[in-house]
Amino acid sequence: MRRKLIVVSNRGPVSFSRNDGGERVAKRGGGGLVTALRGLLALHDVTWIASAISDEDRALAEDTLDESTRDGPPFRLRFVAHEEQAYDWFYNVVSNPMLWFIQHHLWELAYAPVIDRSFHTAWDDGYAAVNAEFASAVLEELDREPDAAVFFHDYHLYLAPRLVREQRPDATLAHFVHIPWPQPDAWQVLPERMRVALHDGLLANDVIGFHSDRWRRNFVHSARELLGEEADARTITAAISVDPTEFDELASSPAVLAAEREIAARRPEKLIVRVDRTDPSKNIVRGFRAFELYLAAHPEMRRRVSMLALLDPSRQHIPEYAEYLGALQREARRVNDRFQEDGWTPIDLQIEDDFPRSVAAYKQFDVLLVNAIFDGMNLVAKEAPLVNERNGVVVLSENAGAHAELGEWVVSVNPFDVEGQAEAIHRALQMGEDERAQRLSATCAHVRSNDVHAWIERQLAALDGLAATTRR
Amino acid sequence: MRRKLIVVSNRGPVSFSRNDGGERVAKRGGGGLVTALRGLLALHDVTWIASAISDEDRALAEDTLDESTRDGPPFRLRFVAHEEQAYDWFYNVVSNPMLWFIQHHLWELAYAPVIDRSFHTAWDDGYAAVNAEFASAVLEELDREPDAAVFFHDYHLYLAPRLVREQRPDATLAHFVHIPWPQPDAWQVLPERMRVALHDGLLANDVIGFHSDRWRRNFVHSARELLGEEADARTITAAISVDPTEFDELASSPAVLAAEREIAARRPEKLIVRVDRTDPSKNIVRGFRAFELYLAAHPEMRRRVSMLALLDPSRQHIPEYAEYLGALQREARRVNDRFQEDGWTPIDLQIEDDFPRSVAAYKQFDVLLVNAIFDGMNLVAKEAPLVNERNGVVVLSENAGAHAELGEWVVSVNPFDVEGQAEAIHRALQMGEDERAQRLSATCAHVRSNDVHAWIERQLAALDGLAATTRR
Repeated sequence: MRRKLIVVSNRGPVSFSRNDGGERVAKRGGGGLVTALRGLLALHDVTWIASAISDEDRALAEDTLDESTRDGPPFRLRFVAHEEQAYDWFYNVVSNPMLWFIQHHLWELAYAPVIDRSFHTAWDDGYAAVNAEFASAVLEELDREPDAAVFFHDYHLYLAPRLVREQRPDATLAHFVHIPWPQPDAWQVLPERMRVALHDGLLANDVIGFHSDRWRRNFVHSARELLGEEADARTITAAISVDPTEFDELASSPAVLAAEREIAARRPEKLIVRVDRTDPSKNIVRGFRAFELYLAAHPEMRRRVSMLALLDPSRQHIPEYAEYLGALQREARRVNDRFQEDGWTPIDLQIEDDFPRSVAAYKQFDVLLVNAIFDGMNLVAKEAPLVNERNGVVVLSENAGAHAELGEWVVSVNPFDVEGQAEAIHRALQMGEDERAQRLSATCAHVRSNDVHAWIERQLAALDGLAATTRR
Repeated sequence: MRRKLIVVSNRGPVSFSRNDGGERVAKRGGGGLVTALRGLLALHDVTWIASAISDEDRALAEDTLDESTRDGPPFRLRFVAHEEQAYDWFYNVVSNPMLWFIQHHLWELAYAPVIDRSFHTAWDDGYAAVNAEFASAVLEELDREPDAAVFFHDYHLYLAPRLVREQRPDATLAHFVHIPWPQPDAWQVLPERMRVALHDGLLANDVIGFHSDRWRRNFVHSARELLGEEADARTITAAISVDPTEFDELASSPAVLAAEREIAARRPEKLIVRVDRTDPSKNIVRGFRAFELYLAAHPEMRRRVSMLALLDPSRQHIPEYAEYLGALQREARRVNDRFQEDGWTPIDLQIEDDFPRSVAAYKQFDVLLVNAIFDGMNLVAKEAPLVNERNGVVVLSENAGAHAELGEWVVSVNPFDVEGQAEAIHRALQMGEDERAQRLSATCAHVRSNDVHAWIERQLAALDGLAATTRR
């Protein structure tokens, strides 16, 4: 069934610039969300509303464009242009670090955050204002297509659904939250008017989706405690996933093969890989410390194993992120200084965004370390096994959404327990070939039969079912 | 009804030393718990088991003593002597900062804690070992008095009840948790074996008490998530309180009157008072910042108002506490440097343990600031109004257990919102005499009719009722 959908997300699937010749050039957006939603475009009539990021995007914001992703199906695209100061508050103060840090339990509450007048302003004139602009754009699109279902995404847009609902009581609204939902006490960090507003905004939707039942139940609990609302019937669990055929193709692409040759030429006998944004939630510093403890406990493995850390620098306009990048560099250097020998560097730290290199590392790992403090899903844990060629073992945090699906086949770790992580690395490296092969193939079979299309279908089915019965 | 009770707490009601003449001298222990439990001693046959703190205590640990608090009723006292290293791990590593920081949401999870081998050792050979020693002492006392009910206290002793239960399936065991209980995700900071063990230990009790229904419900949730146990029927809410007659007497005692004369001689027109241990959970740094914002917004009040901060230095063997003391001193100096004028210091910071001075400040406050990040109860918010003579207003954190009782009569604040705290100070200072008098007298009436005896009676009634029906 072909549907009319209005997808709303802060970051769109494409952004434009002008090349030296003055021609408009499209750059495909990255990120798991955009990749995952691309599957929608082929099957449905999609209008995508997103923030204008570049000057060229802003110039295009007056109109709705007929656009298409490169090599992809057509869709309509509408940019929302925000005032620069408002967008900075929306993105760099409220969405990150505030909401992200609350939802990943990252604040050091003895000292931070300090909610002062400038945060109140950032909330009102940044986060709320940008949400209102998104809501206006949605309302205009609903004027054009009154029957379209609206599909909001993530923590940037908690307030928009209520603003749309107030004007369109009968609209079909869905929201997907891609990051962990914490338990209600975590929301105490925000003053009451803010924590109530964001829950109320989400509850204006007919369907609210989460990657794991753990986050879903936390939201139901939170809605009950903060607003006295019973949200259970309106929530769904739908685990985001990947497109296996994309990774099958990538694995044999020239760019990946070239990167893989480089990795293969440098690697020792055993390779531990981690691939992350440099986000404090990813727990990179403790991961290096765990590897240090492993090397200290197993001197026989020095020179025979190294850790390849491919880290995409992230949100460096935000002080907490800049500091975290410094901290992880310092920790890697400390470990390397302790153990370094001629011709062997324990931690190979590469800070850049290089997706082909990441896929090449996926093929080459013996151990994949995903030790996130909290993580909505963690797609690396699903992507990497698909292309791995060494019967590699995934060491996975019990606080990643992916753990609910893959827990049976991974080596589980507590993200704070570096001793336990060192032991998990040892266990994974010692594991026999048969057991490793069984675990890897079970993981791949799960991901292949629970792919990104299944994620989308689950949500569309929920729109069909739940929205009809709970529509106001 | 006179009962046989075995009270078990880390800190006992009395500690001994030798004076210069070689005679044994008893020093009455301080703290809300010991004060609150003193009411038990008059009415029941109490054996109190506590850690030996001094050398003299240790020398006495072989026997059970017949002792009494100064001017108080008799009770039996049994010291448990711990190996010094084990006690350090138990007290300065696991109980504080680890459990305290988890239960008050104080860790900066991006960086700390790091659970390494030394923490595993501190848990096994410190916390678990000391709990086992307490359990042995309880078992010996139960041999002597098989019908006595055992009454464990607080976060130091989560493991002991299970060890007693295993040996005495029919014993009556109760536990009171004096600090906030967090929601289950907060316990993820501990490796599974530890978080399970402490919940399991508590669940070995017949009755588990909390200061507010919020903490009680969090525990029920946590027990369900971590162990699949339905604990609701075994939990009670009993808000600890104070002995109003004690404060009536203190208010006119020579020591308090002397301290009050000093305060009265120095104070400007309006006095904001805070009385706290220098604990990061008390939110002292943000309190100073809020006062700064108030002074910046109300220049007309400079020289006319000051903040008296009476801070009892706390747990200075623990690095996080030493750092917090430094941070709050720095913040007070910064605010004073900004506004200081001849003859007026905005923040009068006094770091010492001086109870008479605290009571004197209770009498003198126009605004009492209690802005704790999280707090099991906060007895200052109950003590200070009882003796206040200026129709003072309490500004109280929504995350203090006391807020559930006093919320109607205080000015509520979010502990992270310094702008909101500055506004609350303004509102409290502007409030008319009649409204202040009404709020204060309603607060006092509540505390007087819900005093410490009511707290104890509630627990004894629960022992009578619940233990009989749920006894294994």
